[in-house]
Amino acid sequence: METESFLNKQVILKAYTNGAPKESDMEIVSNNIIPSKVKNGSNAILMKNLYLSCDPFISIRMKIGNPGVFPAYTPGSVISGYGVGRVVDSTNANFKKGDMVWGITGWEEYSLITEPDSLFKIDYKCDIPLSYYVGILGMPGMTAYAGIYEVCKPREGEYVFVSAAAGAVGHLAGQFAKLMGCYVVGAAGTNEKVDLLKNKLKFDDAFNYNEEQDLDVTLKRCFPQGIDIYFDNVGGKILDAAILNMRDHGRIVLCGMISQYHLDSYEGVKNMMMALYRRVHIQGLLVFDFFHHYSKFLDIVLPLIKEGKITYIEDIVYGLDACPGALVGLFNGCNMGKQLVEVSSE
Amino acid sequence: METESFLNKQVILKAYTNGAPKESDMEIVSNNIIPSKVKNGSNAILMKNLYLSCDPFISIRMKIGNPGVFPAYTPGSVISGYGVGRVVDSTNANFKKGDMVWGITGWEEYSLITEPDSLFKIDYKCDIPLSYYVGILGMPGMTAYAGIYEVCKPREGEYVFVSAAAGAVGHLAGQFAKLMGCYVVGAAGTNEKVDLLKNKLKFDDAFNYNEEQDLDVTLKRCFPQGIDIYFDNVGGKILDAAILNMRDHGRIVLCGMISQYHLDSYEGVKNMMMALYRRVHIQGLLVFDFFHHYSKFLDIVLPLIKEGKITYIEDIVYGLDACPGALVGLFNGCNMGKQLVEVSSE
Repeated sequence: METESFLNKQVILKAYTNGAPKESDMEIVSNNIIPSKVKNGSNAILMKNLYLSCDPFISIRMKIGNPGVFPAYTPGSVISGYGVGRVVDSTNANFKKGDMVWGITGWEEYSLITEPDSLFKIDYKCDIPLSYYVGILGMPGMTAYAGIYEVCKPREGEYVFVSAAAGAVGHLAGQFAKLMGCYVVGAAGTNEKVDLLKNKLKFDDAFNYNEEQDLDVTLKRCFPQGIDIYFDNVGGKILDAAILNMRDHGRIVLCGMISQYHLDSYEGVKNMMMALYRRVHIQGLLVFDFFHHYSKFLDIVLPLIKEGKITYIEDIVYGLDACPGALVGLFNGCNMGKQLVEVSSE
Repeated sequence: METESFLNKQVILKAYTNGAPKESDMEIVSNNIIPSKVKNGSNAILMKNLYLSCDPFISIRMKIGNPGVFPAYTPGSVISGYGVGRVVDSTNANFKKGDMVWGITGWEEYSLITEPDSLFKIDYKCDIPLSYYVGILGMPGMTAYAGIYEVCKPREGEYVFVSAAAGAVGHLAGQFAKLMGCYVVGAAGTNEKVDLLKNKLKFDDAFNYNEEQDLDVTLKRCFPQGIDIYFDNVGGKILDAAILNMRDHGRIVLCGMISQYHLDSYEGVKNMMMALYRRVHIQGLLVFDFFHHYSKFLDIVLPLIKEGKITYIEDIVYGLDACPGALVGLFNGCNMGKQLVEVSSE
């Protein structure tokens, strides 16, 4: 006989945050009970969460007064974000018990998904680790894909700069550009990450921005001929220095601004004049706009994974209790590659 | 018998400038002598200058250490810029005596053009004032055309904001957008200019930015639904406020930054995060990239002029001696519409 409910550990936002998130902004609650069956006719599914993704946008949703693209969470409620899970019960015609799915879920052991049609079903036969669907085959992978393949469209031999290059999106964006025949330089925040980029991921060059005095000088050293494409995950001073070093008709894709999210006042970008003189294209990117390309994306990226042409780096911690620390770590540069949490392996 | 030489009054750059140009940075020299015949085999033409154009880029070329798109003038030499003139002698097969031309010439009565192939020949039969070829039918007109027709490509009903809207480029860009069915608001620096925009040029709305406390509030008042297209001629604070008010997938064309050219340190643009969230397209524009569209441009704009569908405003001063003052006036907002100098009417 099946149990009628599950004990459901959750990560709750205690109150709106100030600045970068702290572990104390979140609380682990162990006494939540969730019915093990979905109400008939509700069209919902019950999902057992296996992997949860730590992404910067989660910290933006923890603040009030954010610019509104990412609606703020409600204090006292469970945090939500991307995850991979297994359907344990369903009243929705498109999902059945046992299906594997990825998409927006809760930071908890079980989530009732009332609008499951925004989830992606995982073809589990294809022998790819399930955790990849919060990374290279999920939102960060799609972001890197969209920025490189759909927005910047590099040509062979072009000079590409990637910031936060050892991060979830950056290490994939750089490799996509390498696969297209570009010269790729990455910026990261530790020597260990620089080593990863140069030696494991085969970037042409990389530097530790914490050890550079003047980013303009650094970029002129790395790109004496200038930059064709800048894949921006950082914003602020690095964006400013990159603009100063763009070639004519260069392209900048704004994918993230991790240096800026939690400042009281954003840093000013002073070199917009150079964007004019160099006729630079700057394009803001949110991955939601590209989800309709998902199957095209899989057609490109699944073979790259299977043939070993791309190296995907995961930084995994275990258990729901590890979520707050893993999220906080994103803003201290703790993660190498994609930061995720394995909630359950089964 | 023809004279063998002409007395040739010139405007000379005395020394590299600091900050915005001053009249004292330039000198009128009256004792230059220029041969009235071009050397056989030189491929050059001698041009009598009729109209000279005062454009912001001239002031950039008066400085050393400018970003290099516009090469600096040599102190002691004649200033150059766009002009309209008549060929008085030619050894170039493409030009003959009496041809009317526009393009880069000197701030002087007569110019020896050693590479005349970069000049555009004027079809003088078409009954348009010759002065228009330094304005609506020359570089500023092409800039407005390229920004609106080639870069931003407005759709009917879109919301368009133009800064320096009573300037040479702005007053045309706004009217092009109106002709395409957009709602157009202009920013200008005096109430007289605001009146011109609203009442003569039929902008939907306009404001005097010198009378506004907070440009973000102003733009929210003028564009409660947000901005689809921002045609930037100013940069700095107006650009920053515009970014904050862009709609999803809005477009910004950077055509000029008159507020920034002569600052010691450029103002920082703080709202780039909003360009990301709103997936804004920002594109630097230099008109040189579009000169190959010149005949297509004429096909669009000549009928608009002849049918009275566009109003072109000129601010004309007379005589070469007026050049320095007219140039300086650009940076004090003195001009209404296109600032030019009539050197000679024949």
